[in-house]
Amino acid sequence: MTRPHPEPPFCTGGVPVRGFRFAATAAGIRKDGRADLALAVADVGAVAAGVFTRNLVRAAPVLVAAERLDRGSPRAVLVNSGCANACTGDAGHQATLRSCEAVAGALGLPAAEILPASTGVIGAVLPAERVEQAAGALAAGLSPQQFEAFARAIMTTDRWPKLAHAKIAAEAGVVLGIAKGAGMIHPDLGPLEPAHATMLAFLFTDAALGRDALQAALADAVENTFNRVSVDGDTSTNDCVIAFASGASGRTPERAALTQALEAVCDELGRSMVADGEGASHVAEIVVRGLASDADALRVARTVATSMLVKTALHGRDANWGRLLAAAGRAGVALDARSAKISIGGVCVVEGGTSLGADAEQRANHALAERSYVIEIVLGTGSGRARYLTSDLGHEYVDVNAGYRS
Amino acid sequence: MTRPHPEPPFCTGGVPVRGFRFAATAAGIRKDGRADLALAVADVGAVAAGVFTRNLVRAAPVLVAAERLDRGSPRAVLVNSGCANACTGDAGHQATLRSCEAVAGALGLPAAEILPASTGVIGAVLPAERVEQAAGALAAGLSPQQFEAFARAIMTTDRWPKLAHAKIAAEAGVVLGIAKGAGMIHPDLGPLEPAHATMLAFLFTDAALGRDALQAALADAVENTFNRVSVDGDTSTNDCVIAFASGASGRTPERAALTQALEAVCDELGRSMVADGEGASHVAEIVVRGLASDADALRVARTVATSMLVKTALHGRDANWGRLLAAAGRAGVALDARSAKISIGGVCVVEGGTSLGADAEQRANHALAERSYVIEIVLGTGSGRARYLTSDLGHEYVDVNAGYRS
Repeated sequence: MTRPHPEPPFCTGGVPVRGFRFAATAAGIRKDGRADLALAVADVGAVAAGVFTRNLVRAAPVLVAAERLDRGSPRAVLVNSGCANACTGDAGHQATLRSCEAVAGALGLPAAEILPASTGVIGAVLPAERVEQAAGALAAGLSPQQFEAFARAIMTTDRWPKLAHAKIAAEAGVVLGIAKGAGMIHPDLGPLEPAHATMLAFLFTDAALGRDALQAALADAVENTFNRVSVDGDTSTNDCVIAFASGASGRTPERAALTQALEAVCDELGRSMVADGEGASHVAEIVVRGLASDADALRVARTVATSMLVKTALHGRDANWGRLLAAAGRAGVALDARSAKISIGGVCVVEGGTSLGADAEQRANHALAERSYVIEIVLGTGSGRARYLTSDLGHEYVDVNAGYRS
Repeated sequence: MTRPHPEPPFCTGGVPVRGFRFAATAAGIRKDGRADLALAVADVGAVAAGVFTRNLVRAAPVLVAAERLDRGSPRAVLVNSGCANACTGDAGHQATLRSCEAVAGALGLPAAEILPASTGVIGAVLPAERVEQAAGALAAGLSPQQFEAFARAIMTTDRWPKLAHAKIAAEAGVVLGIAKGAGMIHPDLGPLEPAHATMLAFLFTDAALGRDALQAALADAVENTFNRVSVDGDTSTNDCVIAFASGASGRTPERAALTQALEAVCDELGRSMVADGEGASHVAEIVVRGLASDADALRVARTVATSMLVKTALHGRDANWGRLLAAAGRAGVALDARSAKISIGGVCVVEGGTSLGADAEQRANHALAERSYVIEIVLGTGSGRARYLTSDLGHEYVDVNAGYRS
């Protein structure tokens, strides 16, 4: 299954986003010969910000990138697929440093200005010599138009490249987002706190921003988007979202406008990840309302979204609301199931905690045939609400993950 | 796949466990005509204790049973398959009460001495009239030998009945255990705190015990056994474990001896549930050591045991230790992955947080072909340890749960 990237492309005077160039190449890290090394650079410098997985098992590139963001002014990101370089000890750390040095040399930049990111199998050391061999060709291929090649080179089990864009209000600039991720998707990202899962996203804007403003807007945008999607509940060792602002637009947006644009891009990329969830046929938006707090609602939404019984029922197009309520009940927050109201794809199937009958369930079953739908669960009269995006769990997920390394 | 119950049977002078009679019948609650109603009675009275799911969505029989245990001296348990009678409001509550009254009438006992338990689809009201019609025949069929018929009547997606027995030290008596459960298995059981998932277990002993002693020993035994198994991470609305002591042995065991016997029976039943996990081919015992506390180790073991990526790797017989470490890292407890040591089926594949190489992994892959094996994860030098039993996740799980209600 393929899904085209959004049309029309991300043009601002013939350039997707002013101030950046992109490149990709096949360095031989992947066994299948596909492009596996991607580079993006802000030629005249940039402000950078990032959030990293809260998983305590962190890949070498995550640790290096977080440290460089903390200490310096990175302007480029070097991403490889085919190898996560996680759980690889000092050898993995050295391989990440060498890779960055090679590309920095080709670009004429200090290595500290290159942020590394990796995705692929855990436990194998990144073959730095292949990055070294490819660095010259990679740098030579840089162009403002190569953003889609970048997006394709970072794919692993993805079925399509993931790109999104948005304009910032008051013509303050644009945001281009590029991401990958289909499995090990349950991001738990925090500011400068490295963690582990394999979703990667890179945001590029030409707005003129200070670092703190970019970091704050990024953290807000990620909290409401990537931190609210799940394919399999497994948070990766390599997850990161990195944002660069080139300042080429010459304009500084309002904070709200910046956050809104970043959030729009992150939401579209996150939704694309769930739609591309390994073996997924459906995207379900779980909306939970009526609880005492947003935090309570979030715990319920997350528990429902990661329930294997819920996800297999969605795969079977079965409006099995009992599994929704059962998952809600084990979320560890106070709730009144006897007041529960549940709608599936706009069809109300439960009121007062009990079934509205077979006809309603049959209509809900039909609604579950759609590619995407909303499931709304109301558990009381409180103002707490939350949403979570999840995919169904089918045979293809088992095929992809029982044989991933074979 | 069938699995015989343990041989030889549970005999103490020709009777499985003195003081109890069992019966089962097909009451027409299930659509397939299989036996679906089971009864066990202590004719001369018993001491009873129970633990119930901590899920906040609780089926009617769970609420009624917990209340009766709290207030009276129940001596019988009435169990149906084919209908969980959960999320059924007042109609479901009345159906549970009517069912107990019908059987109490046939036995000549007060209804308050009957504990109800149900398992099956959520959302449908128990058809009490069918229990009323079957009550006479059910009571007439009671016999000390009908324990296996009881075990078969409470099965849902189980492939085999689950029975276990143990002797209490110093000839203080025996324990017979009967359970069901293959899916929605992630028990979270607490003393007299009703919850929701579908594992049911019933323990019968002829030892002479006070109620507090039985309750305390039961709670301890459950905490180390049923509360340490998972098939799919979904805690049911109907889970319960109920224990009866008839006193027919005339002897009162030491507390440690009683707990040990109960734990042996619960451990065997829990292991049988995981082996019978929907679509499961393997039982993995996840052992976690080296953390600061047992509670920390338990969180790590539970997170690893419920990881979809770990469970699909086990299905693929893939010694994908990176997924084990990635799951450990998102458990929310402090750990040092760089000191990690991992053994799979007795084959050490990771030391110092990194791979011991392809040969070791290949040998571990072979170990994963076994029906059951131990995966040991050492994360530091602390004294905290825990274990969890889990199954692999394969296509049959998807088949069973994507089409369960169809």
